Amino acid sequence: MKALNPQLNTWDDSALLQFFMSENMRRPENINFGIGEMDFPTPQIIVDACKGALDSGITFYMPTAGAPELRLALAEACSREYGLEFTENEIFVTPGGTNALFVVILALAGDGGEVLYPNPGFPAYLPQIALGNGTPVDYPLSEENGFIPEPDDIRNRITNRTKLLILNSPSNPIGNIIPSETLEDLAAIAIDNDIWVISDEAYRHLVYAPDRHSSIISLPGMRERTFLTCSFSKSYSMTGWRIGYIVAPSTFNEAFFKIFQYTVTCVSSFSQIAAAKAVQLGDSYYRETLLQMTSRKELIERGLSEITTVSFPKPQGAFYVFLNIQRTGLSSAEVSKKLLDDYSLVTIPGSAFGDLGEGYLRLSYASDLDKIEEGLERLKDAMQHLIPQ
Amino acid sequence: MKALNPQLNTWDDSALLQFFMSENMRRPENINFGIGEMDFPTPQIIVDACKGALDSGITFYMPTAGAPELRLALAEACSREYGLEFTENEIFVTPGGTNALFVVILALAGDGGEVLYPNPGFPAYLPQIALGNGTPVDYPLSEENGFIPEPDDIRNRITNRTKLLILNSPSNPIGNIIPSETLEDLAAIAIDNDIWVISDEAYRHLVYAPDRHSSIISLPGMRERTFLTCSFSKSYSMTGWRIGYIVAPSTFNEAFFKIFQYTVTCVSSFSQIAAAKAVQLGDSYYRETLLQMTSRKELIERGLSEITTVSFPKPQGAFYVFLNIQRTGLSSAEVSKKLLDDYSLVTIPGSAFGDLGEGYLRLSYASDLDKIEEGLERLKDAMQHLIPQ
Repeated sequence: MKALNPQLNTWDDSALLQFFMSENMRRPENINFGIGEMDFPTPQIIVDACKGALDSGITFYMPTAGAPELRLALAEACSREYGLEFTENEIFVTPGGTNALFVVILALAGDGGEVLYPNPGFPAYLPQIALGNGTPVDYPLSEENGFIPEPDDIRNRITNRTKLLILNSPSNPIGNIIPSETLEDLAAIAIDNDIWVISDEAYRHLVYAPDRHSSIISLPGMRERTFLTCSFSKSYSMTGWRIGYIVAPSTFNEAFFKIFQYTVTCVSSFSQIAAAKAVQLGDSYYRETLLQMTSRKELIERGLSEITTVSFPKPQGAFYVFLNIQRTGLSSAEVSKKLLDDYSLVTIPGSAFGDLGEGYLRLSYASDLDKIEEGLERLKDAMQHLIPQ
Repeated sequence: MKALNPQLNTWDDSALLQFFMSENMRRPENINFGIGEMDFPTPQIIVDACKGALDSGITFYMPTAGAPELRLALAEACSREYGLEFTENEIFVTPGGTNALFVVILALAGDGGEVLYPNPGFPAYLPQIALGNGTPVDYPLSEENGFIPEPDDIRNRITNRTKLLILNSPSNPIGNIIPSETLEDLAAIAIDNDIWVISDEAYRHLVYAPDRHSSIISLPGMRERTFLTCSFSKSYSMTGWRIGYIVAPSTFNEAFFKIFQYTVTCVSSFSQIAAAKAVQLGDSYYRETLLQMTSRKELIERGLSEITTVSFPKPQGAFYVFLNIQRTGLSSAEVSKKLLDDYSLVTIPGSAFGDLGEGYLRLSYASDLDKIEEGLERLKDAMQHLIPQ
């Protein structure tokens, strides 16, 4: 038998998969701090729009770049949110935010170009770069810097083969945001070195007051080199719908069209009509969601503060806490396994997000207050046993 | 500005796009023989299943390989249709048949491996091979052989770098099918040379009596090296839903999982529930569709036979006729443009399907009888003017 694509060997998540597939993962008494989606159902008004589109027979192919009404709605929303004027030609609808990332990487770095990505960071970056035939180059995020990218770390890794810098704010798995001053430094580096930037803002509508979301795309000189990727999954509790989008200079449309036409064709037609309705919900919808998510964040923050043997950066966005469990003396995979097996608490080992995630766990607080409370109890209990006093 | 992925320059469809974007393409009086989808709406029972899934709150992530009930339904249907026993572990659900093809090519040939594909053939093959970092090697289909792959043409193109052979039956754009004897010859070649086969069967439920669909996957020794790609688009008038699937030995699941998890994540949850319902419709649904499509096929076949200056292979499957227009003395792009501009008839120039498609037009008969009749009149009229008597 001939060999498969050797890029598939660039990463190995078999241990992690084994963990996720384990018997104990399916126990009904589990509290799930692992999951990357909110427990809210999709708002009824969006569901109704989808059903209406189905009833109107919108079951045929859509244009490759997206339904015109969705592109227009997104252009208007992004113009408002970023203080720039976007047209529908700068919006490209994709089947989810993950696919949006892959399309950009494949278009820009598929010649072996180097792509800088955060470690720890979203687990898809490395596989996407490898599968897109780019060259992965990680940059460190460390607790002593608040898990913020250090401009010097980026600068030192740039070569004449560097094509792309991936930024992720709010961050999965850290739950922090990149401050404006750092974005300004990073913008200067991108401009000086003529590199493109992917700004992965899948969680941009989940930033907790007094913090505010800011994006590198809004900085002078950056709009023409920034590829903003986003998703309906987290903003509107639409994970199962698979709708994302790219905001990019329209000069790249031909490249995206070529990739998209021949790898995906188009995105579900009636789902796009529903997504356009979601965009029209406007800011009031985010405010309501944020209100609920803020109580959850405050609860977990308070609860974790009471466990004096662990530490974590201040949660500012998304719905994750990145918990330092180094005093257990165990690997993050070992701690996650013990939490699951002995305490029925699901967490994600930090090593799933890169080797520099070792020593941490990602906790998701996207579930209701009772469950968070119970999960915190189990965690407290576990840490008392795992960390020698 | 740095360069984009040079693979994007492997093909150029800008002329074709310009044609599709032209003003005249949007005239209401047009008859559309260009379109690659049937005019039937998605059956109501499938739409209702989708609405039911939405109402039940099935709006969250699905497993990467697909909804369990859909994989099971497809395994049962494929077992019945191919005379083999498939389990759900051999089914991988994708966002459309085009993505199914891309995932297989990326998994198997992403090391620069050579991929044999038909010319003329489905326009996605070459871009997919290029974007998946394989090496495209076309094999000819010619009118004198009935546009059937010649085993010798395949054999002569095999090197020690050949990974994959793409077969497409029923064929887009030809509308013919590959006979069983040829499939047997091709199977022997694949086995002798240890190469994998993609059997693109997107149109397998549209084969007209007395012809019958047969697949290379059913031949001895082929199941373990065949990747069957298929789609709900043509079988159930579900083009806008974006659901396809791969049938493949389960030993490749890890590779597909790795690609799929990080490039697409999963397929729309509620759409998969609806697709499972579609599969359960069983053979009676295809029979009804085929009945309607057979009248359309017979009408266009009869009409075209009356135009003595053109010729075409016998339509056996899908909903296309590949029309030889060489006696016009014009390129296929020129003829398509004239038909659009002067006769309001949309067709696809054969050159869109590869350079060996030059001299032909692809006509789709996926519209109602009145429109086909009117389109035939316009074509007759045009040919009288275009071909010197």
